[in-house]
Amino acid sequence: MKTDVSVSTIKRLPIYLHYLRSLPKEEHATISATQIASALSFGDVQVRKDLASVSDGGKPKVGYEVKDLIARLESYLGVNEENNAVLIGAGRLGQALMHYRGFAEFGLEILAGFDNNPKLFGMQIGSKPILPFSELEAYIAAHGVVMGILTVPAHQAQTVADTLVKLGVRAIWNFSPAHIVVPDTVVVKNENLAASLAVLSKQLQQKK
Amino acid sequence: MKTDVSVSTIKRLPIYLHYLRSLPKEEHATISATQIASALSFGDVQVRKDLASVSDGGKPKVGYEVKDLIARLESYLGVNEENNAVLIGAGRLGQALMHYRGFAEFGLEILAGFDNNPKLFGMQIGSKPILPFSELEAYIAAHGVVMGILTVPAHQAQTVADTLVKLGVRAIWNFSPAHIVVPDTVVVKNENLAASLAVLSKQLQQKK
Repeated sequence: MKTDVSVSTIKRLPIYLHYLRSLPKEEHATISATQIASALSFGDVQVRKDLASVSDGGKPKVGYEVKDLIARLESYLGVNEENNAVLIGAGRLGQALMHYRGFAEFGLEILAGFDNNPKLFGMQIGSKPILPFSELEAYIAAHGVVMGILTVPAHQAQTVADTLVKLGVRAIWNFSPAHIVVPDTVVVKNENLAASLAVLSKQLQQKK
Repeated sequence: MKTDVSVSTIKRLPIYLHYLRSLPKEEHATISATQIASALSFGDVQVRKDLASVSDGGKPKVGYEVKDLIARLESYLGVNEENNAVLIGAGRLGQALMHYRGFAEFGLEILAGFDNNPKLFGMQIGSKPILPFSELEAYIAAHGVVMGILTVPAHQAQTVADTLVKLGVRAIWNFSPAHIVVPDTVVVKNENLAASLAVLSKQLQQKK
């Protein structure tokens, strides 16, 4: 098992986990790297290399034990750790993320959304409440929240991030188009849609 | 001006463009790399290197002409090309993206959303209609659509992508959690939120 795993490998691990979990248990006690590669349209070599980060490798002619490989992926990705999150900015994108069911599969639980707009207070989005921003501090303290998801407008992003850090949040997933700065002790992942679009547009331009 | 620009640089170019556009025109005829770096919390060297991909460099003691730099970034990123897009899967995430105003700034226009759910037909999301999936072919042919945005469930993603490719769409921005495969002539950008979350959770785990 490797200790130094690349970000591109880590990004593919949830795809393997999702696929393995989707297999009917009766039919698939074991699976080969070739079968996985074929199902996901990945290369054989890449699959073997990726899975070597979490497993000691499949057995010759048998492959990986599915149950074991799922457990190793889950453990590596920490999906059973139940990271409690709050979401700040319960507008359209925020509400869409609160509804999104795919996160729970990877151990993320969005407990509540927070906003400044009184019209949203008391709303339930997929059984999760939207609460006033003024209640954020008490809520984070009471619920062991480790992650904040930012879906606020760009000009509010840094201020809200500073507040979250001050309240002890240790990870920020930033969907606002602003570039935010946090201390080294906090992890941040910027989900800049405009940046993604720029890459896509550029590739499109180059194909012309 | 460089011809071989890294993906990480391309991802930062929209951030520079957004920032330069936000400056009051009267006050900022020119700007230095140091000023830009300080405003965005980037390193000086990185800013100079990034901007060298689109500009021949600022003048000593004066810096870059803001208007010129904006024009070069716009041209490089192709933001004035008006890439027409359609969105497939007008559920919550799809509607949030249809509402998102930030894309137009980078030349992307989502013209319409398509769905199979009759309850959504005729709805207007930010003045953009939701239309039946059966009308997709005629719509793409009539409106010069170059890009398809996928916000369908995972199990429909590949089929819808195949349809878009067959109808002549040349770029696919995939927000579904499925891994999709397209011909070499088509560009694809996977926006896999579960994968992003995995990276973030892993980093969080490592900080513990």
